[in-house]
Amino acid sequence: MTTTTAETGHAARLHDPGVRGFASDNYSGVHPEILAALAAANGGHQVSYGEDDYTARLQELMAEHFGPGIECFPVFNGTGANVLALQSLLPRWGAVVCASTAHINMDENGAPERIGGIKLLQVPTPNGKLTPELIDREAWGWGDEHRAQPLAVSITQTTELGTCYTPQEVRAIADHVHARGMKLHMDGARLANAAAHLQVPLRDFTRDAGVDILSFGGTKNGLLFGEVVVALNPEAAHGLVYLRKMNMQLASKMRFLSAQFIALLDGGLWLRSAAHANAMAARLRAAVDTIDGVRPTQKTESNGVFAILPPGVADRLRTSFRFYDWNEAAGEVRWMCSFDTTEEDVDAFAAAIRHELRGYRSGQGT
Amino acid sequence: MTTTTAETGHAARLHDPGVRGFASDNYSGVHPEILAALAAANGGHQVSYGEDDYTARLQELMAEHFGPGIECFPVFNGTGANVLALQSLLPRWGAVVCASTAHINMDENGAPERIGGIKLLQVPTPNGKLTPELIDREAWGWGDEHRAQPLAVSITQTTELGTCYTPQEVRAIADHVHARGMKLHMDGARLANAAAHLQVPLRDFTRDAGVDILSFGGTKNGLLFGEVVVALNPEAAHGLVYLRKMNMQLASKMRFLSAQFIALLDGGLWLRSAAHANAMAARLRAAVDTIDGVRPTQKTESNGVFAILPPGVADRLRTSFRFYDWNEAAGEVRWMCSFDTTEEDVDAFAAAIRHELRGYRSGQGT
Amino acid sequence: MTTTTAETGHAARLHDPGVRGFASDNYSGVHPEILAALAAANGGHQVSYGEDDYTARLQELMAEHFGPGIECFPVFNGTGANVLALQSLLPRWGAVVCASTAHINMDENGAPERIGGIKLLQVPTPNGKLTPELIDREAWGWGDEHRAQPLAVSITQTTELGTCYTPQEVRAIADHVHARGMKLHMDGARLANAAAHLQVPLRDFTRDAGVDILSFGGTKNGLLFGEVVVALNPEAAHGLVYLRKMNMQLASKMRFLSAQFIALLDGGLWLRSAAHANAMAARLRAAVDTIDGVRPTQKTESNGVFAILPPGVADRLRTSFRFYDWNEAAGEVRWMCSFDTTEEDVDAFAAAIRHELRGYRSGQGT
Amino acid sequence: MTTTTAETGHAARLHDPGVRGFASDNYSGVHPEILAALAAANGGHQVSYGEDDYTARLQELMAEHFGPGIECFPVFNGTGANVLALQSLLPRWGAVVCASTAHINMDENGAPERIGGIKLLQVPTPNGKLTPELIDREAWGWGDEHRAQPLAVSITQTTELGTCYTPQEVRAIADHVHARGMKLHMDGARLANAAAHLQVPLRDFTRDAGVDILSFGGTKNGLLFGEVVVALNPEAAHGLVYLRKMNMQLASKMRFLSAQFIALLDGGLWLRSAAHANAMAARLRAAVDTIDGVRPTQKTESNGVFAILPPGVADRLRTSFRFYDWNEAAGEVRWMCSFDTTEEDVDAFAAAIRHELRGYRSGQGT
Repeated sequence: MTTTTAETGHAARLHDPGVRGFASDNYSGVHPEILAALAAANGGHQVSYGEDDYTARLQELMAEHFGPGIECFPVFNGTGANVLALQSLLPRWGAVVCASTAHINMDENGAPERIGGIKLLQVPTPNGKLTPELIDREAWGWGDEHRAQPLAVSITQTTELGTCYTPQEVRAIADHVHARGMKLHMDGARLANAAAHLQVPLRDFTRDAGVDILSFGGTKNGLLFGEVVVALNPEAAHGLVYLRKMNMQLASKMRFLSAQFIALLDGGLWLRSAAHANAMAARLRAAVDTIDGVRPTQKTESNGVFAILPPGVADRLRTSFRFYDWNEAAGEVRWMCSFDTTEEDVDAFAAAIRHELRGYRSGQGT
Repeated sequence: MTTTTAETGHAARLHDPGVRGFASDNYSGVHPEILAALAAANGGHQVSYGEDDYTARLQELMAEHFGPGIECFPVFNGTGANVLALQSLLPRWGAVVCASTAHINMDENGAPERIGGIKLLQVPTPNGKLTPELIDREAWGWGDEHRAQPLAVSITQTTELGTCYTPQEVRAIADHVHARGMKLHMDGARLANAAAHLQVPLRDFTRDAGVDILSFGGTKNGLLFGEVVVALNPEAAHGLVYLRKMNMQLASKMRFLSAQFIALLDGGLWLRSAAHANAMAARLRAAVDTIDGVRPTQKTESNGVFAILPPGVADRLRTSFRFYDWNEAAGEVRWMCSFDTTEEDVDAFAAAIRHELRGYRSGQGT
Repeated sequence: MTTTTAETGHAARLHDPGVRGFASDNYSGVHPEILAALAAANGGHQVSYGEDDYTARLQELMAEHFGPGIECFPVFNGTGANVLALQSLLPRWGAVVCASTAHINMDENGAPERIGGIKLLQVPTPNGKLTPELIDREAWGWGDEHRAQPLAVSITQTTELGTCYTPQEVRAIADHVHARGMKLHMDGARLANAAAHLQVPLRDFTRDAGVDILSFGGTKNGLLFGEVVVALNPEAAHGLVYLRKMNMQLASKMRFLSAQFIALLDGGLWLRSAAHANAMAARLRAAVDTIDGVRPTQKTESNGVFAILPPGVADRLRTSFRFYDWNEAAGEVRWMCSFDTTEEDVDAFAAAIRHELRGYRSGQGT
Repeated sequence: MTTTTAETGHAARLHDPGVRGFASDNYSGVHPEILAALAAANGGHQVSYGEDDYTARLQELMAEHFGPGIECFPVFNGTGANVLALQSLLPRWGAVVCASTAHINMDENGAPERIGGIKLLQVPTPNGKLTPELIDREAWGWGDEHRAQPLAVSITQTTELGTCYTPQEVRAIADHVHARGMKLHMDGARLANAAAHLQVPLRDFTRDAGVDILSFGGTKNGLLFGEVVVALNPEAAHGLVYLRKMNMQLASKMRFLSAQFIALLDGGLWLRSAAHANAMAARLRAAVDTIDGVRPTQKTESNGVFAILPPGVADRLRTSFRFYDWNEAAGEVRWMCSFDTTEEDVDAFAAAIRHELRGYRSGQGT
């Protein structure tokens, strides 16, 4: 691995920037335009904790995307965004209905419960998507003091299983939820991928579809770090400015959080990067659809492909390409594409899968 | 203010990088060497959540500074570092003795209590520094179930008042604390400034002086963001890997946190920057010591000057230079210097102060 | 309603003590022997907060039942007992595997999560009972910081569905759990009913079967109020003395908590009362087994009968006898017997059920 | 010690009911009228969790004392009452100004912080009483996200030092607090003693003086257990019905909590008992005022006497009479009287003090 001084000054490069895999969209680095934005925001002094010029500009840009009156709160990471978004919607006795596969339920080490003080009412789903009917399995018991009060619903867009809610589906959920006095949170860690898939503006499936508060993800779409809690319906959300600080999510040099999001949102980078990642996943899906022995388990509606492989295949593939098991017991794996995934990456990976499964049909005898 | 395309590509610069003040060391931006390190760490895929090459290297570097066997956990910000460091030292029923001026008590919106579940036992001090005698005012009642159990002490180095513990003072506290079965945390948001003032290696007043766990600050010393919890005595700290995640302080693209600290620690940037900031504060202090009407309130042992001004002066000065009141009722202000503060900045500010106070002696009649 | 002065002095009786139903074993009052014990413990001064003679005696009695070395902590109620028992077993990052029907999951308004800081990993069961296989559905992911760490299992004896674990079943769970480094909690809100059903000593299916900590219920077995956390394996439980206070479960006049449990445990009242309640449930079950249209849903192994009724029947019955729906959607109801339920109560209720369902076969056409 | 069967049936008496001391008003037992009320409330089935006839009656009685529109929530103990009262007043980011000697700060093992999620802003006082001026030392910083928001004040009536706020003092605090958008909580663990001292109705120094929510203590005034949270201004308090359950303070057999309070409030027992305890403290105070060497430290305005004794005296006295050090370093002790303290108890204790201090003047040479 060589490092040119021109590129990095004296800074040491410790890794091979040519290596990419299919493990996660957070294995990738920072989009060059984002790095440039950080450099542009540097120098001189700016008021800390969000009273800087970049955060003010971000608020304007977000309002362009989501409509006037919204309020945005940049934070460090997705778990932080989710916990404080949910806290802002709920009294201390609130509970949140979510899919059992939701990131807030599976991957946050209980932060919503432990830090947020929130009970999660979990509903199994076939594809990571809630529906009014599924919500009703846990949305009951209002007024019963023994039951954590179901006062919000959280949906993930795109879901942890790579599927995508249509604007109509979100609207149906929002109407259902609001009719019961509940509020609607959207975990948008991969929100841009949804827009790229649906080919509609962001607000069509968020604010205009009835979402009250949004965790808008940046890290998985080429940022160095950073998410934004967007109060789409500020009347539904309380105390975010305080919750952000006490939840340890208040960046002092916030200009660098906001500058990244400005770079993402201002010139369409958000959509270009997400559309590219989706396209790479679609390319991979198309390839594996032609390979016997690979059984896709979900629709490919964003930047991930989920599939069941015959025993042993995943581990052999992993000697060359990193990726994760999704459901180890079932032999299900997850392949994620990113803004920097290339067609060559996909084709090489597909070839490797094909190679591992050559003769599968005869070998397996099915 | 002009922006060259070569510098920033298409990224928009929204602020004037020539403006600097004395409000806080987190008003300043990112040291250029840190930005270069971010660029060098970019590209390709690296395992997320800390299993990357940069975090491994950081662990080595920290061990060079603090000695073998330590364990380090990069986190987003100082409040996060403090809360999880303290949680790792304490059972659920633990309390922490701290100076009443401590950042954990004054500036974290109750995060230690609310998120950490920690009772703070606060002791007034004249200069922000605890002593064994001061600690004993609250270190009592072990075994009494009605009392939150004082099982740790937290000191800040350098203190919120700009003062600095000597290695001997830290050692005396550590011995006192350990003899009572308590543990010692150091909030080192400005740790480098202490080393620059004391002119000793970092470990002399941390690990070798008996500190069990350290919040090692980077943001106030030229990083974009980032602190590191360093378990100097790993046997005293429990579950940091889990606490970091559940406290919403686990960065997915951790290579960019670690790469900044590598750049800070590997070539002495940490000390150069801190020594410079301290020198600028000393220069300012020397200047104001010659100005009648300015009454410094603390020793200038790091990068901040604290002083009482006659009524009205602070507000007039603030029309040109940003800085904060420290104790509004007393007329006390705080002037902070940073890695990017220049001698010209200091001299101009000192001249402005002198200008405001010209004729002070006759005007005030004292 | 008449009140004789001899009975109550000047105290006003506001209710009809002749009315009983099948709603809950906590609708009943206090066993007369318990009231007598309260009177006997009254008068004079006793050290508060548990250093009294009654609490010392209770510790001895509990050791007679559960074996030497156990430690007991009287508390106010079952939710308190469960939360502090679980907290004592777990670090801050711990999670508890439980049946989805567990009281801790369904009926405590999120207290385990919100107050205890505990993630509950819920497993559906057919009969309220966990098994090693069911536990394994959620007992995984140790060392993965994203997953709340499954470090304890909670089982309810008898279960919320009236079923009962055999000593062998508890032992199999305990061995399974301990082999994985986990600990075992038993929610014994109706522990006495289990002993009465199993006809074995209490320790056979608790301490000797490998349970680490027990919530020993008294309120549902004729106490005025009160439960005891019994650390059967004190090495597995940490800080109960502090946890009890900070969880607001420390009674100042603890002699009156302990005196009730002494009266319960010393002369066999605990078993007499539970056996009677079980017998009344068995009598009711035997009766309804002969009534067409009533479909029992669980084995009757304690003091409750669960059954599905045809639509409308439950509401008509409730005009005369109070009881609760268990699963409203399914038409399932719960009928609970208590220490004070009489044979006449049961027979009258069975007759009422029979009356409502007369002609059921022809009417329903099945 | 003999036990007559007529008194206690077979219940064992383990203590000597003739022994009384001056340790605490919770060392005493249950007033006989309260025990009679428990017996009267027994028998038959009553709806659990507060829908019983006694709790309905208690609500009426409380409204007679405090005025129409109030809402009352019986709970187990004082710490529970305080935590849930404060939670009901505050958003998640709230802080409470209190005297540094407040029970919530000193004696609840951090429950307000850990369980309530509340930051306590503590103010030293000479006598346990806050004033508008003292409150202002911590009542500042609204809108500053770094500061836990001071949104409530908690005062204790009578204070932990035995002093008593006049109605005018409470009103001045309430006006001051409300003018700043804050709310006022009163910890009335010894509320009845205040009424007895002030010789005014309860509502004069609570609701009519502007208190928003009250912890009304019963345990220290002759109850077996039990306190009531009284929302005097229900619009200021949110979600108490849910907070009570999730804070593990919901008694299932609530009739027995309510029946005790009915007995206390309905016929004046509350005032008789408190006035008696106060009178006993006054008698003790009058006696020790004549003893050289005893230096009272506070006004005796309720049922406790605080005094400084010469070294060694306290420990010698304690061989015969139990009482507590209040400030061990200062030699200050606390002597508490109760509803069952007799004139003979006081006189014997005063004689013992006098005996220990005989010759004090010459012996100490002062």
